[in-house]
Amino acid sequence: MSTAYRGGKLTFWFELASTYSYLSAMRIDALADLAGVEVIWRPVPLGPIFGAQGWTTSPFNIYEAKGAYMWRDMERLCSARGLGFRKPDPFPQNSIRAARVALAALETPHGRDFVRALYLAQFTEGQDIAAPATIGTALTTAGLPADLASAADDPVYKEALKTASAESISMGLFGAPSFTVGNELFWGDDRLEDALNWALSA
Amino acid sequence: MSTAYRGGKLTFWFELASTYSYLSAMRIDALADLAGVEVIWRPVPLGPIFGAQGWTTSPFNIYEAKGAYMWRDMERLCSARGLGFRKPDPFPQNSIRAARVALAALETPHGRDFVRALYLAQFTEGQDIAAPATIGTALTTAGLPADLASAADDPVYKEALKTASAESISMGLFGAPSFTVGNELFWGDDRLEDALNWALSA
Repeated sequence: MSTAYRGGKLTFWFELASTYSYLSAMRIDALADLAGVEVIWRPVPLGPIFGAQGWTTSPFNIYEAKGAYMWRDMERLCSARGLGFRKPDPFPQNSIRAARVALAALETPHGRDFVRALYLAQFTEGQDIAAPATIGTALTTAGLPADLASAADDPVYKEALKTASAESISMGLFGAPSFTVGNELFWGDDRLEDALNWALSA
Repeated sequence: MSTAYRGGKLTFWFELASTYSYLSAMRIDALADLAGVEVIWRPVPLGPIFGAQGWTTSPFNIYEAKGAYMWRDMERLCSARGLGFRKPDPFPQNSIRAARVALAALETPHGRDFVRALYLAQFTEGQDIAAPATIGTALTTAGLPADLASAADDPVYKEALKTASAESISMGLFGAPSFTVGNELFWGDDRLEDALNWALSA
């Protein structure tokens, strides 16, 4: 990267099936560039985190009122930010294979474009990110070779995703998106600005 | 009230034992006055709402990581806003009697001062808002007669609080603070500005 960072480094933990992670993914790089903060993108599956809390699906499915609110909240926020939004079916999607491919993609300069392409396919077109076709198209959109999709079955990335999951839990993560600056944790798209400020002053 | 409202009316639903409700209570009137929006303050007990979700205590107690995060988040936010903060013991406090007194107090022009005094006693001094002494001092601080405390045992306010609870659930509330503008629901201190903007444009 040729960008000169004024200082500060922030880790962006996102779950590919998470609605609010979509919001942050679409704006974090622009805000971080303005602030001069370096951002590290890390996919993290929420399944194990939710499992540790005794949940077998998204809390938005378990708690009906909370779920109804979230869909309306996303509709309002996406509208205000000029982003498309559609509720995917099923929700949440199985994001494990896509997350492994994201790990591989993020080793290249085009990984973030791949992640954003997946979010747009899922949340504006209602596509299933577990489908090889969706992953393949997102790779192409990002200018990445289609055979990167093989990372979904690669033991190296299977292991790397488990490591990310364990690491996120040890840092106190309980949802996504989350942002960490050292040991300082910020949860939710609403805290992105606070996290960037923290990175700047840390 | 002599204030001229440019338009819009917002209902502020708060739980007296709720940390994030404290944050909103301390700033909502100043922001609403600036915006020219009329605010109606309504205490609402979260107990029945949480009970409907199968919880017997605050989710911050049930989900350890979420709870640990909340206390740190409150610490940071209060520090940034120049507010004191201390974790009350026990948490959450039993707010039912205080909420009935708040209903009575809010029929006077000093009700909001009473509510803010209760929040400050609880979250900056660690006092128990279920204690008659805490309620009595908050009444005096707000310039209200001490015998207003009898509302805690008054069937009229017992019934009014149950009605508020049922009404809030029927509107889709699942946590506090919440803000409603007509049927539009906003959840969390983070959405206060959005709710005010909605009230202005509604």
